[in-house]
Amino acid sequence: MESVEGNNSAVKVAFIHDANKLSREEERHENVDENNSDRFAITQCIGETDTHSDALITRYAHTLTNYSLRNLGYPVNQDFNYEALAPLLQFHLNNAGDPFLGSGFSLNSMKFEVSVLDWFAKLWEIEKNEYWGYVTTGGTEGNLHGILVGREQLPDGILYTSEDSHYSIFKIARMYRMQCVKVASLISGEIDCAQLETSLLANKNKPAIINLNIGTTLKGGIDDLDLVIKTIDKCGFTNDQFYIHCDGALFGIMLPFMKQALRISFKKPIGSVTISGHKFLGCPSPCGVLITRLKYINALSRDVDIISSRDATITGSRCGHAPVFLWYALKKKGLTGLENEVHNCIFKARYLLNQLRGAGIGAMLNEYSNIVVFERPLDDNFTRKWTLASDKNIAHVVVMKHVTIEMLDTFVREFVQERYVWYKDGQVQPLCIAKDVGSKNCACSIHKLSSNY
Amino acid sequence: MESVEGNNSAVKVAFIHDANKLSREEERHENVDENNSDRFAITQCIGETDTHSDALITRYAHTLTNYSLRNLGYPVNQDFNYEALAPLLQFHLNNAGDPFLGSGFSLNSMKFEVSVLDWFAKLWEIEKNEYWGYVTTGGTEGNLHGILVGREQLPDGILYTSEDSHYSIFKIARMYRMQCVKVASLISGEIDCAQLETSLLANKNKPAIINLNIGTTLKGGIDDLDLVIKTIDKCGFTNDQFYIHCDGALFGIMLPFMKQALRISFKKPIGSVTISGHKFLGCPSPCGVLITRLKYINALSRDVDIISSRDATITGSRCGHAPVFLWYALKKKGLTGLENEVHNCIFKARYLLNQLRGAGIGAMLNEYSNIVVFERPLDDNFTRKWTLASDKNIAHVVVMKHVTIEMLDTFVREFVQERYVWYKDGQVQPLCIAKDVGSKNCACSIHKLSSNY
Repeated sequence: MESVEGNNSAVKVAFIHDANKLSREEERHENVDENNSDRFAITQCIGETDTHSDALITRYAHTLTNYSLRNLGYPVNQDFNYEALAPLLQFHLNNAGDPFLGSGFSLNSMKFEVSVLDWFAKLWEIEKNEYWGYVTTGGTEGNLHGILVGREQLPDGILYTSEDSHYSIFKIARMYRMQCVKVASLISGEIDCAQLETSLLANKNKPAIINLNIGTTLKGGIDDLDLVIKTIDKCGFTNDQFYIHCDGALFGIMLPFMKQALRISFKKPIGSVTISGHKFLGCPSPCGVLITRLKYINALSRDVDIISSRDATITGSRCGHAPVFLWYALKKKGLTGLENEVHNCIFKARYLLNQLRGAGIGAMLNEYSNIVVFERPLDDNFTRKWTLASDKNIAHVVVMKHVTIEMLDTFVREFVQERYVWYKDGQVQPLCIAKDVGSKNCACSIHKLSSNY
Repeated sequence: MESVEGNNSAVKVAFIHDANKLSREEERHENVDENNSDRFAITQCIGETDTHSDALITRYAHTLTNYSLRNLGYPVNQDFNYEALAPLLQFHLNNAGDPFLGSGFSLNSMKFEVSVLDWFAKLWEIEKNEYWGYVTTGGTEGNLHGILVGREQLPDGILYTSEDSHYSIFKIARMYRMQCVKVASLISGEIDCAQLETSLLANKNKPAIINLNIGTTLKGGIDDLDLVIKTIDKCGFTNDQFYIHCDGALFGIMLPFMKQALRISFKKPIGSVTISGHKFLGCPSPCGVLITRLKYINALSRDVDIISSRDATITGSRCGHAPVFLWYALKKKGLTGLENEVHNCIFKARYLLNQLRGAGIGAMLNEYSNIVVFERPLDDNFTRKWTLASDKNIAHVVVMKHVTIEMLDTFVREFVQERYVWYKDGQVQPLCIAKDVGSKNCACSIHKLSSNY
């Protein structure tokens, strides 16, 4: 094997060789010393010299600030302040293993993690001695875990989920080699229980693992948990023949603060609930919370000597900072703070809906939702400028805490101006989006939003 | 459904009710106002009052510093400085989707991510236009991805991995519903290729998906990639009948800097390589790098409108800070810095080995490894004090950058002192660990390390 040590190490030669293929400006350094080679090697990727890296970070932060001020399309609360936690960034914190059992790796935040989990267990009405959970790397890991628990309980189970489900659900079905039945949705985005009934009855010989969207990514449609349970019951599935996982990504923490909204509760026959921590609460990195019933976990856990713990998680080594961020957010906001934030987001979403419809733009807003859906802007530059998220004919704004009335006013004003250009002063009619948002919310020439407004 | 809005919301009542069950000291607040109730509710979990939360964080950071000074057992470099990146913590950064295609969510660090990936692609010798990869949430996600790629290429493939493999590998086999053959290891921890050959020949009718440990978690044994490839070839498997995933958690970035060490290279018939970013490089949160061949990825990718990208990752929404941390570490260290760090860790590991053996303590150190394996301390308090990792009869120290000669000297001195007590002044003999580390490395009364030293 070729020597790779010392000044002539093969890895360095490779990097130097590549560095020498750089731009004309850099060719003059062809016979550079070792440090320069290193510099060029990494430089080549990012297009900056090493001495400029701190300046580059500063410029990057500046760019992010600009993006942040116009970020309307993603369910991410960007209004947070974790300055007090900055001292923790000098440590690698790792919650490897089971948060309730601790870990041999002492630089962990498992006490904070359990505190956060206890809080959510109470929110979703399950006793401390009956639940298990952990802080995940995000919504997808929560779904990965919840659906795995379901599959391990019901190995032959078929996964049912609506066509409006997050893309992770279909990915997970494939990963886990599970049969997946995609169920049609209503206009609102929520699962069509009549269709679910048909599907369940067609597969009565196999258990049902049901993923529910609380709510859907695009439209904020909330699957009706109570009606789903009734449907399962009506189809004759007994309690040991089904498992319900609730993907509560954004709304899972919001609904408990809204009057008459669907109640997510382990007093109902559900198996697991997950939310994303960075969505409503806000957090620098993606994270989430998964709560399930303790009784399911023994089947999944393995003792792991090397970490002096047990492991029933998906990712094993887990971020220790995220639980502290979540703990801090919950502590600073308090229940009243959270309640106010929820109602404020809903209020602003209704404001946006009214502004759009008032301007003759087709738009929809589900009850208990802060996701306003409307016709897709025709210009991708406009979509990018406001970081809108879109799918086929429609786009949406998710009205989070950082979104101000002023931002919404500017957005609508610009949308109206641009739309005037796209639709050539009214000579061209807006697309019909009735099949996406319902005819009463569509502003096309046939459905004429204004007459229904 | 019960009303949950306003001052009497059910969720608040539940929290208040629970708060009222708190300790005697807190009982006096039974008729507290709403804010106090919130405070107690979250407080209850962490055992502190809200006004003390910042002080609690300060105390926590102080505790972590103490742990950090005695952390010997886990492969985590705690010597890093990312102060310059602090301004980025005011943003939620999310690299949802494919790093090479960008994302609709503008607050991402995909340019940094691709830069880091290019660096590793070069390290492991694969052309830019032939590889695909991403920054993961840690080693387990890298393994989840690599093995999934293997399974999608060879759906009937059997997963082969040594008994010394990381616990995640067996978990993944179960998650993916793959048949898994556990192959015996040599004393060093590396896979026994004679046993692998037997297993492969016994299952010649099915393709082979082979997970290799570069190196093993406990002993730092390095599976001999070249010998494994020869063994596969000898057994008559053609190139389209096997897939090799290299779990390079710690050593994957170290070996290229060591003379005559195993070369990890995509010029060999391997399918994927992964490392953990927080291990050798050091990073506040767990993260990792996965590199695979681009040609495999189309089969896994799905277009995802909502994020204006494609998704072929495991976790979907991904931490945007980790790629910037890795980029910064690579940029600041440079190749020479990395090479020096590698050799320094190896030097200190040899030093520790000599100190232990000089003190009559059975110990083993594989070539190209910074993991020193020795008899398990009899007192768990001692193990915890030094954050050692252990498994059955043996424990280990992973000599990372933050580990100083002074720390090692103190550790050995205390070990010798405590051992004197555990073994009652020589009246009780140390456990025989010959089957774990080989007879020449064992200090029991039969194998008498000293005579072989």
